[in-house]
Amino acid sequence: MNEIKIFSPATVANVACGYDVLGFCLDAVGDEMLIRKVDKKGILITKIEGFELPFKTELNVAGVSALAMYEKLQPDCGFEIEIYKNIKPGSGIGSSAASAVGSVFGMNALLGSPYNKTELTQFAMKGEALASKCEHADNLAPALFGGFTLVKSLSPLEILEIPSPDNLYATIIHPQIEIKTADSRAILPKEVKLQEAIVQWANFGSLIHSLHTNNYQLMKRSLHDAIIEPHRSKLIPFYKEVKQAALNAGALGTNISGSGPSIFSLCKGIEIATMVSDAIKKVYLSTGIKFDIHISKINIEGIKVL
Amino acid sequence: MNEIKIFSPATVANVACGYDVLGFCLDAVGDEMLIRKVDKKGILITKIEGFELPFKTELNVAGVSALAMYEKLQPDCGFEIEIYKNIKPGSGIGSSAASAVGSVFGMNALLGSPYNKTELTQFAMKGEALASKCEHADNLAPALFGGFTLVKSLSPLEILEIPSPDNLYATIIHPQIEIKTADSRAILPKEVKLQEAIVQWANFGSLIHSLHTNNYQLMKRSLHDAIIEPHRSKLIPFYKEVKQAALNAGALGTNISGSGPSIFSLCKGIEIATMVSDAIKKVYLSTGIKFDIHISKINIEGIKVL
Repeated sequence: MNEIKIFSPATVANVACGYDVLGFCLDAVGDEMLIRKVDKKGILITKIEGFELPFKTELNVAGVSALAMYEKLQPDCGFEIEIYKNIKPGSGIGSSAASAVGSVFGMNALLGSPYNKTELTQFAMKGEALASKCEHADNLAPALFGGFTLVKSLSPLEILEIPSPDNLYATIIHPQIEIKTADSRAILPKEVKLQEAIVQWANFGSLIHSLHTNNYQLMKRSLHDAIIEPHRSKLIPFYKEVKQAALNAGALGTNISGSGPSIFSLCKGIEIATMVSDAIKKVYLSTGIKFDIHISKINIEGIKVL
Repeated sequence: MNEIKIFSPATVANVACGYDVLGFCLDAVGDEMLIRKVDKKGILITKIEGFELPFKTELNVAGVSALAMYEKLQPDCGFEIEIYKNIKPGSGIGSSAASAVGSVFGMNALLGSPYNKTELTQFAMKGEALASKCEHADNLAPALFGGFTLVKSLSPLEILEIPSPDNLYATIIHPQIEIKTADSRAILPKEVKLQEAIVQWANFGSLIHSLHTNNYQLMKRSLHDAIIEPHRSKLIPFYKEVKQAALNAGALGTNISGSGPSIFSLCKGIEIATMVSDAIKKVYLSTGIKFDIHISKINIEGIKVL
């Protein structure tokens, strides 16, 4: 096998009270990538469709993560990468993460899987760092492992796979606006009240418990974030209205996906996820702002060979 | 049945990264209480052995929680309470909580169990408030439910029962010194760094996951607290030395029990719990400070009829 086509999924990070550590994987949205093993050494990006991204390996997220793995392993061959991008960069549902894991997952498969998923995450972090100026794994981990993942620590990198109920869906709205990474960082508080932090970890522990016990109602009572959301939601137009509409339509919880502008809602079952989508659509249609909406089952498989 | 004898267990609250929300129940230490249904209306404390505590119902923790339930239910009888106290007040292993739950648990049993355990916790919170000047449930919940409990919220009161591995033991050292509640509160920071709070909830989520998956090694990597411990440990003499000795002897984690001065270590199996006890003993014997040591299996049953 010298060529492999893969589906690299979109992901949601910063899941409410699990800010910076909990993420989950989507099914309905993702990039496709073709990885080809060639005789000529080096990493070459030969095709990019969907969005304009740099072809130069060292400037491309998929290229940088591929190089990190390539330089470590030093295989006696090279690789060509074709990228068919469906996830819009800057949308807040792990566009750069999908690119970063795609190349290393594909190369690893073509080489007989010398690396495990945690090791692949580590290579992909080099690609993420190019996109966001800091190494993080909260979109990479769910893209590679699927389902819900908890990044317990970055150094050493430790990723926990958290089980989730079968019937869990996400509805995502992506308002077509740009939020600058610098703005979404600058708006965060450096310090938080101890009492608020306690509420956050009480909710986060409860959320992990709810995922283990298929307890949707507890999930609903735990999907809160009083620390980040009040600040970052200011950067997303009509955030409050979307959230209220989604909750009224039956969402278990609604919050900012990644650092925005996308907004995710978790829902029990596809019927409610669809009603939430309809309700959100109604809010946004009146604003004049362009948007995409995705309804997706939680993808417990993660990245896969097509 | 007009008389019931119960065992009301000691408990550990503020379990490392689960500060203020996670507690667990002990087996080897606890109070005994005798609750007697009588014709004469009212709540009377007729005997207290072990430690000097007020007999006046309104000034006694067990009396106050009993009154809260009694006034709500208004039964056509009264109750006498005998308290055989083994848990030293102020030791940090839930002495007042044991008293507070004992009376309401016993009365409830004699009345045909009109209340569930969450409702009993609510009555007992009135007793705890007498002892600690604020209503909290982090010792009451594990005493009543057994095992590990997560107090998700106080208003409304929501208690989650978290499973735990079969072979989990705690070793507790109680240095015979007094820490004033005012001091242990005043020493806490009002604000914490966001980055430290994130580490705390990553660890707490991981700890909950480790309890669900019987993963002792993950438990070991999760039992940290960089927010409270650095401050409160200053009030406990030789805290660092005890912690280091316990970890060297194989403890999964060591931290302050409640607001101290007791120090708990969680251990896999009785052998390691005993080695930890020996190691801690060695540290404290040289200090001249009197101390007690308890080795206890995690008590998954909680309070019980004898």
